[in-house]
Amino acid sequence: MLVLITYDVNTEDAAGRRRLRQIARQCVNYGQRVQCSVFECLLDAAQCKSLQAKLCAIMDPKRDSLRFYYLGNHYAKKIEHFGCKTTYLPEEPLLI
Amino acid sequence: MLVLITYDVNTEDAAGRRRLRQIARQCVNYGQRVQCSVFECLLDAAQCKSLQAKLCAIMDPKRDSLRFYYLGNHYAKKIEHFGCKTTYLPEEPLLI
Repeated sequence: MLVLITYDVNTEDAAGRRRLRQIARQCVNYGQRVQCSVFECLLDAAQCKSLQAKLCAIMDPKRDSLRFYYLGNHYAKKIEHFGCKTTYLPEEPLLI
Repeated sequence: MLVLITYDVNTEDAAGRRRLRQIARQCVNYGQRVQCSVFECLLDAAQCKSLQAKLCAIMDPKRDSLRFYYLGNHYAKKIEHFGCKTTYLPEEPLLI
């Protein structure tokens, strides 16, 4: 199934930027980074639980927000895109 | 239906921050801002087309990315949240 993962973090501080890089690194193992802090991952139920656990261990629950949206297996018609398509490389330094 | 709207913009520049404020102002007419640039809107098909047109008129298609995810009417079990819940007021200056 397609799982959309959105991550809200304060990227003004270096620790926040580091957490975003770590989150991105985990997510792109299973899919793509479609926006700076939005990831589309193809996961089965076990992978999803495992990824959730990893991301929850990385995030700062007092400062960051992490949301999962389950789009199922028939997701092609559920997504529309407008504007530019930027490619993000999770290992590169992030400028926002 | 619930429509998730994610907006990627460079908020380092004042024009980008202004576009984000304008996007937020439109989206919160129909729902809530759940993360800095993620909005959950309750829309019927006509409202969705109208909102899309407004947002496309605000965004800079060469620099920004705007994505719509259609979560249908039975969305309660399709969403999971972890971490803090920040409330964003679209009229306030945004610090990222």
